[in-house]
Amino acid sequence: MNGAQALIRTLVDSGVDTCFMNPGTSEMHFVAALDKVPEMRGVLALFEGVATGAADGYGRIAGRPAASLLHLGSGLGNGVANLHNARRAHTPLVNIVGDHATYHLKYDAPLTSDIASIAAAVSPGWLRTSASSADVGADAADAVAAAYGPPGQVATLILPADVSWGDGAATAAPAPVPSRAAVDGSTIDAVAKVLRSGESVAILLGGTTLREAALGAAARIAAATGAKVLAETFPTCLERGAGVAPVERLGYLAEFMQFQLQGVQHLVLVEAKAPVSFFAYPGKASELTPEGAGVHTLAALGDDGTAALAALADAVGAPAQVLAAAVQAASRPELPTGPLAADSAAAVIGALLPEGAIVSDESNTASLALPAMTAGAPRHDWLTLTGGAIGQGMPVATGAAVAAPDRKVLSLEADGSAMYTLQALWTQAREGLDVTTVIYSNRSYAILNVELGRVGAETGPKAKAMFDLSQPPLDFVSLAQGMGVPATRAETCEDFAAQLERAIAEPGPALVEAVMPAITL
Amino acid sequence: MNGAQALIRTLVDSGVDTCFMNPGTSEMHFVAALDKVPEMRGVLALFEGVATGAADGYGRIAGRPAASLLHLGSGLGNGVANLHNARRAHTPLVNIVGDHATYHLKYDAPLTSDIASIAAAVSPGWLRTSASSADVGADAADAVAAAYGPPGQVATLILPADVSWGDGAATAAPAPVPSRAAVDGSTIDAVAKVLRSGESVAILLGGTTLREAALGAAARIAAATGAKVLAETFPTCLERGAGVAPVERLGYLAEFMQFQLQGVQHLVLVEAKAPVSFFAYPGKASELTPEGAGVHTLAALGDDGTAALAALADAVGAPAQVLAAAVQAASRPELPTGPLAADSAAAVIGALLPEGAIVSDESNTASLALPAMTAGAPRHDWLTLTGGAIGQGMPVATGAAVAAPDRKVLSLEADGSAMYTLQALWTQAREGLDVTTVIYSNRSYAILNVELGRVGAETGPKAKAMFDLSQPPLDFVSLAQGMGVPATRAETCEDFAAQLERAIAEPGPALVEAVMPAITL
Repeated sequence: MNGAQALIRTLVDSGVDTCFMNPGTSEMHFVAALDKVPEMRGVLALFEGVATGAADGYGRIAGRPAASLLHLGSGLGNGVANLHNARRAHTPLVNIVGDHATYHLKYDAPLTSDIASIAAAVSPGWLRTSASSADVGADAADAVAAAYGPPGQVATLILPADVSWGDGAATAAPAPVPSRAAVDGSTIDAVAKVLRSGESVAILLGGTTLREAALGAAARIAAATGAKVLAETFPTCLERGAGVAPVERLGYLAEFMQFQLQGVQHLVLVEAKAPVSFFAYPGKASELTPEGAGVHTLAALGDDGTAALAALADAVGAPAQVLAAAVQAASRPELPTGPLAADSAAAVIGALLPEGAIVSDESNTASLALPAMTAGAPRHDWLTLTGGAIGQGMPVATGAAVAAPDRKVLSLEADGSAMYTLQALWTQAREGLDVTTVIYSNRSYAILNVELGRVGAETGPKAKAMFDLSQPPLDFVSLAQGMGVPATRAETCEDFAAQLERAIAEPGPALVEAVMPAITL
Repeated sequence: MNGAQALIRTLVDSGVDTCFMNPGTSEMHFVAALDKVPEMRGVLALFEGVATGAADGYGRIAGRPAASLLHLGSGLGNGVANLHNARRAHTPLVNIVGDHATYHLKYDAPLTSDIASIAAAVSPGWLRTSASSADVGADAADAVAAAYGPPGQVATLILPADVSWGDGAATAAPAPVPSRAAVDGSTIDAVAKVLRSGESVAILLGGTTLREAALGAAARIAAATGAKVLAETFPTCLERGAGVAPVERLGYLAEFMQFQLQGVQHLVLVEAKAPVSFFAYPGKASELTPEGAGVHTLAALGDDGTAALAALADAVGAPAQVLAAAVQAASRPELPTGPLAADSAAAVIGALLPEGAIVSDESNTASLALPAMTAGAPRHDWLTLTGGAIGQGMPVATGAAVAAPDRKVLSLEADGSAMYTLQALWTQAREGLDVTTVIYSNRSYAILNVELGRVGAETGPKAKAMFDLSQPPLDFVSLAQGMGVPATRAETCEDFAAQLERAIAEPGPALVEAVMPAITL
């Protein structure tokens, strides 16, 4: 058995049976081994950022890692942005990067580069070069275990070509998946005391606590104590909709976060970090916890925050029956009419979002009305841009659809961001994935027009031109059709609703370009 | 004056007046400063790999650096592949990467990452973080000087947002551009002795010696001594065509290189490295210099190889008048007819290539017949994939067109490679660049089908599927039109010739999708 076969067999035995890939010559034995280990599904991407983003989306929905397979340092570079997002999402992900044969590196052939240096930025917690074919099975098992964390992480295994093609390899038994640490009773008691203090408390939920059980426990605590419950700004996977306890997300803009946290005397962190400004702005604060507020960690990242919340709810005497009143009631907005805009598009989506949908949200400035408009829609999962590296939404949607072939995926995508990893559409077409993409086509980097004002810079026409995507306008219908995805364009609410309804009703990929003005703040 | 203004003013004063960019919030003051320094041209790219590849193409043609402006570690990641190619091309390039404000880094906001770790892989020779607004002018001047080398390199300046927006900055005087080291007489004499030894000598040209003067000197040496002259496999910029001394490039496949070097007893390196296999293959050699051959460095990278070749030609007594017989005669292939294939497409290109054209060649497996078919075309420059990181050709074409607005750029692009940085088309449309793109649409990763056999791996249907781009077929006419570039499709030689002729005749960007079968070896 060669190294590649041992690697793939070990991955499959460890529960990793999907590999998103963009291989090159040094990965040929890995690719050839796909025919020896039929349980491994290889999903081809035309660009590495699609492969890594899809592996992230897969991991977020499946709760177990996918693998990505990249070609040397340059392929890894192309995958960095979405590995960065996966790192921030704490998604379990096994990132395999092919390298030249070990003995070939010293010749400094053209594609040689310092892979480990690049990988360290996205995979600081676990990064290993497989030293021999005999080791690679064990390395793979270790990589899978490391990917699980907790919290989950990107585990990068550099795979030299001769390790891949060399014989004498053996599969390794799956390493145990480490479980989340239980929060001890004294921590729960201390937080319970804070909640009973009569002072103003906000509970900030993040990580894995944005699922029904944890949200329900938090809602019970809120009902019993008056605490405010908030979610981190960019959740990895937020469960929401009718029947689930709703949670307000912290805003993106620092000013808005400060408004949400105003008057809070105690901040309780549950698998979340204390809030900081996304960017720095001249003369504005980076730390957004209200001055003087006490910060209490109920559960650190990697702890079992869900169990801790349940224990805390019991500790504060929150009756289970209050939850029924706290969960979101079913409600849909009316279908709007007239010219399309970000708000009315959100209403259309809220009116049509199907039961069990997965929403991959990279709608950026077009997103402001979405939480309210979709709050009472049937239960769904909401995946966000966790690391701020745009070009994540369409790949994540792709991977989510591979992980959950029986669910509709709605990919809400800003036009500027779409152009980083548009190649995801081709993989959606090739694999017949059930993804409906909405492009918010406002023909600008609208967020940068907002930010330009916020950083206090004087603006002239040359600067403004750098955010203008209107010359020429991007025609997303042509772009999608060019990659085999049927597409239509809507400029009115009526057209958008009809097109979105049809796209949702039919299985397989489709795209709707929603033309609308950019928001102004 | 704030840091961004001092930076841009210093760049302009140092001769860097074009910046290919994909900025974000942390670069807003840089963008705003474009209006304060009108001499700086900002060219927007929809993806960072387009910006860095365009800066590479610009530098190759202009002979002076462009700047690239990228957003944090993830933007740098997206630019890595083409920075890698620029590094291998020794293109002078000033790579500016925005970062969070210095005081904001400790909060580990979502977009925070280890920028320097990523940059070290593509910018090992010069990498600096600007520490204060007072320093940034001097840092910029140093970066430009470092970019020149020699040999040229990617100089990366990390620009924290507060350094950019802070006041008290000042421009710096341009640092002197270091000149290439002259090769000393004893080295020239030693190589002259080798050439007169009567043994078989091959002269391998690389770096800046692939221009008319150096090629002419090498041709004189060949005529006088019988030495064989070869060029490195992937030149940064090769001048060729009627009136220029022709040179045979080393092949990509190791077997072919070995054939070209067979019987060589002495290898003379001129700004080139001794030949090595592009990839490692089981049981095959990495070093391709014939066993026992002497290796003699006439000029190292960064030396003045052109002057050394002229001195060497004189030293071996090569008469200047032999050059007239050695230069390439004008000749064009006949326009072929019938179904289109890689060979006939090359003939069409050879028949139509205009005087003074710049060819950006990422045609990969479709390229085999191109050298012969274009050899006698009017004088032109040939730019290749120097670092093997695909997705380089269209960005390089874009930057070359910005550098030379009066020349036609022909971008020869494999379909698989095109999909990495297709967004270059939008920048070509936006800037009205005179680029004609030919997509070799064979609907496969043809090179990987070749390599799969060469690495000796057993092949099955799952492996083969990973190289198949036919399901769905990419429609490059739709894709180009979606980005504002007029496009047509050709399946016969007649159609291809008519469409290419029209595209070349009309100014501005155009694309021809040339549908053809994949080659088989």
